[in-house]
Amino acid sequence: MSDLPVIRLRPKSKPQAIRHGFPWIFADEVVLDRRTRALPAGGFAVLEDAERRPMALVTVNPVSKIIARVMDADPAARIDGEWLRVRLARALAMRERLYDAPFYRLVHAEADGFPGLVVDRFGDSAVIQPNAAWADGMAGEIAEALADVAGVETVILNGQGRARGLEGLDERTEILRGAAPDAPVQVVMNGAVYMADLLGGQKTGLFYDQRPNHAFAQRLAQGAEVLDVFSHVGGFGLAALAAGASRATCVDGSAAALELAEAGARAMGVSDRLETRQSDAFKAMEALAEEGRRFDLVICDPPAFAPSKQALEAGLRAYERVAKLAAPLVAPGGYLGLCSCSHAADLTQFRNASARGIGRGGRRGVLIHSGQAGPDHPTLPQLAETGYLKALFFRLDG
Amino acid sequence: MSDLPVIRLRPKSKPQAIRHGFPWIFADEVVLDRRTRALPAGGFAVLEDAERRPMALVTVNPVSKIIARVMDADPAARIDGEWLRVRLARALAMRERLYDAPFYRLVHAEADGFPGLVVDRFGDSAVIQPNAAWADGMAGEIAEALADVAGVETVILNGQGRARGLEGLDERTEILRGAAPDAPVQVVMNGAVYMADLLGGQKTGLFYDQRPNHAFAQRLAQGAEVLDVFSHVGGFGLAALAAGASRATCVDGSAAALELAEAGARAMGVSDRLETRQSDAFKAMEALAEEGRRFDLVICDPPAFAPSKQALEAGLRAYERVAKLAAPLVAPGGYLGLCSCSHAADLTQFRNASARGIGRGGRRGVLIHSGQAGPDHPTLPQLAETGYLKALFFRLDG
Repeated sequence: MSDLPVIRLRPKSKPQAIRHGFPWIFADEVVLDRRTRALPAGGFAVLEDAERRPMALVTVNPVSKIIARVMDADPAARIDGEWLRVRLARALAMRERLYDAPFYRLVHAEADGFPGLVVDRFGDSAVIQPNAAWADGMAGEIAEALADVAGVETVILNGQGRARGLEGLDERTEILRGAAPDAPVQVVMNGAVYMADLLGGQKTGLFYDQRPNHAFAQRLAQGAEVLDVFSHVGGFGLAALAAGASRATCVDGSAAALELAEAGARAMGVSDRLETRQSDAFKAMEALAEEGRRFDLVICDPPAFAPSKQALEAGLRAYERVAKLAAPLVAPGGYLGLCSCSHAADLTQFRNASARGIGRGGRRGVLIHSGQAGPDHPTLPQLAETGYLKALFFRLDG
Repeated sequence: MSDLPVIRLRPKSKPQAIRHGFPWIFADEVVLDRRTRALPAGGFAVLEDAERRPMALVTVNPVSKIIARVMDADPAARIDGEWLRVRLARALAMRERLYDAPFYRLVHAEADGFPGLVVDRFGDSAVIQPNAAWADGMAGEIAEALADVAGVETVILNGQGRARGLEGLDERTEILRGAAPDAPVQVVMNGAVYMADLLGGQKTGLFYDQRPNHAFAQRLAQGAEVLDVFSHVGGFGLAALAAGASRATCVDGSAAALELAEAGARAMGVSDRLETRQSDAFKAMEALAEEGRRFDLVICDPPAFAPSKQALEAGLRAYERVAKLAAPLVAPGGYLGLCSCSHAADLTQFRNASARGIGRGGRRGVLIHSGQAGPDHPTLPQLAETGYLKALFFRLDG
């Protein structure tokens, strides 16, 4: 018998979803006695149904609305270094099949069997985001397992972002293993060179999730004049230059991000075709319209305007406004790519907001492609509805 | 002033959607007087709102539930050879940007500005499907415009399928221009060679829509043992062989389709790695399970099980059954691709049916990719909800 504490589903809660693979147990589904409330955040427990039959091994966090997350369908599993290595090896096998270089999201939380844990790999470095208490507590073991299984030398803990707050975790950055890189790491994706600042950058330094959407934009970029709004380190702009764009203009509010975009362009030998503008994106689009600038391809990849259900309406209005300002900047017969990384806005809502914005910008468009995050960002079918990244490509009227 | 007949929206109908680009007018939205009922199917008319303001030039078909389709937002437009050539040139420009060889869907109906008309291009041949009465009536002019704009020599009219029946059009096949090809046309997609039978095949002889999904499957295929169920002319199987699969087994009910798959494999020089089975797909999957066969990658691309809303429930059960039979054939840690080309089943419904089937087949899976038709199949944002092709790729448990 296990010596772990037990948490039990309430008599009226429905265990079927969990039996079919749904990984989350909400606080109102369990018997919330004093003992359960007192369990340490990030500890492990056996989940039982109302008839006291063991269902799964879970990790518990009494401060989170998601009070428990399924770690293993086997209630007798032990979460130790060996357990971490087996699951990491499985995640690694898929990435090695999909990618020809070791630059990818190696662990994408629940769908890779690691609730709340994100690991991005940059060659022999890895950045981990432990967004659940168990992973924060076991960060050292996770780093060791990464070294064993994937052979990475440097492991950085990037403890930032909204998800940690919901789990009651502090913000912190820590070098868990190896030496901190003293310069941005060069990442080659779709033939473009990106500079990833693993210590100072947003999230894990680079957004791997847009890789297939960068690739789609490249098919429209040959000989094109391209505008990349909310460019961060030059995601779409550098991809377009790698695909033969005649010129790319990257707009971002962050001077540091634009410097990395310029460093990437230098590494690619295309600095002469890159223009950067440090500016609020909305103001930059208004200014470009006033200057009479037109582009064959415009991409807007803003931050999450609708990070939560509460922010949904305002977020959709912001997406509509992006589309409205971007559409007039597209040359006749040109292309417009609009992205959303908001969980709360689903594909239909985002598509409608985008189409409305294009119309209010005085244009009409047809949808030629709806992209998502790449396959190194798998999802559980039960959670797929919330697939957060959407990239819509429109061809605008002539 | 135009000498065309007029059809008028009823006082309570809402013109906004049409003004914003919705292309269809249903019979219950217009004043259905004797004169309107007597309009010839496929003729043109001026659509007016209830206040008699001209809104658009439409094509009328009193026998269809879609009584009118917007041809041009300009009520004074003339639908003639020049009009056809301008729109064809626009459609062609996009395909020439996207593809490096002239093999693609050149016209995808409403989204390319040609209501109900589909044109697939196979090098210097084109197959047209006029699924609206106007296009059927103007097939000769369309063929001429295709020759002028795209330089095609042979144009075949393929008048088959459910859509024509709804428009009151007969089934027929006709050579509109040039000489009928006396052999299947070789089409290279993703490095594989497909044999397209432009006169005898299903729909237009080849399904271009699956091209990006074939390409995704190729990323999983290196060294893999692959099963392609409902293979038609070898879509996924030949793509996998082109990407280095060790073996592909194609299952289809049609001996003619499998012969074309074998001809494609011969042209690729990979006949020794292709196995074909002429069989009902469900029976073949049961038989393979009994033989104890396991595959690293299984793809099922069945015909539309839910072609209409009436067929939705039965269709979803059929998709679930496909998943249930396919899942046990996937090796531990292998991949399963499930496709639906049913308009009536939306992505969520199809994903749920697929996940349920995988579970009933005794497996668990995570979703790594949701693919759609390629960008040569654009959609109007207003009709995007019905995006018909879905291709879900799952990684199954180890």
